[in-house]
Amino acid sequence: MYNLKYKIWIDKGGKVFGLGPYQLLLRVKEKGSLSEAAKSMNMSYNKAHTLIKDIETRLGFSLIKSKTGGAGGGFSTLTEEAEDLLLVYEKFYKECEEALNDIFHKYFNINEV
Amino acid sequence: MYNLKYKIWIDKGGKVFGLGPYQLLLRVKEKGSLSEAAKSMNMSYNKAHTLIKDIETRLGFSLIKSKTGGAGGGFSTLTEEAEDLLLVYEKFYKECEEALNDIFHKYFNINEV
Repeated sequence: MYNLKYKIWIDKGGKVFGLGPYQLLLRVKEKGSLSEAAKSMNMSYNKAHTLIKDIETRLGFSLIKSKTGGAGGGFSTLTEEAEDLLLVYEKFYKECEEALNDIFHKYFNINEV
Repeated sequence: MYNLKYKIWIDKGGKVFGLGPYQLLLRVKEKGSLSEAAKSMNMSYNKAHTLIKDIETRLGFSLIKSKTGGAGGGFSTLTEEAEDLLLVYEKFYKECEEALNDIFHKYFNINEV
């Protein structure tokens, strides 16, 4: 059985945003912590931090607001711009997935085992 | 300015077919030689040969017919199945490209510089 595979990302003098950063930001939003988000993706905190900083530089705006210290340790939330980006990227990516799958099924016999 | 980037390939227990093999086969067809085709893509003959053999194994049919020897050396042509695959893949890939670009322009501002 043939399967369709793809990677889709947005570039601006280098990779700006793709499925990996999307998933990372989504988990930051869920967990309130970049370190917990990174851990849940088997990514080191340093790698996640560098990734976010690189993307922020390319995009020209901040993605994460961090509050450090306090009894419970640090806490991270997404900026409004990051929330907007997640919404747009999610719609964009879903529509790409649907379109690619439709086209794949049109040209390649998926009933073949 | 943001750009859309993507890779699309077909998988069957491993990569079966994508833009690289498509371009390689197209050049075999044009040049009548796998070695010339590989050279024109800065690929070693061994790499190209292994790639074609791996794809043939996954697909279950031959892609290239070779005639060796003779005054002018060897000569390679595509099998009928390879010709058909090129035609289908070309249509498939073009339609994917058009769909992805349309969706990208719908969600991301391409006039931004």
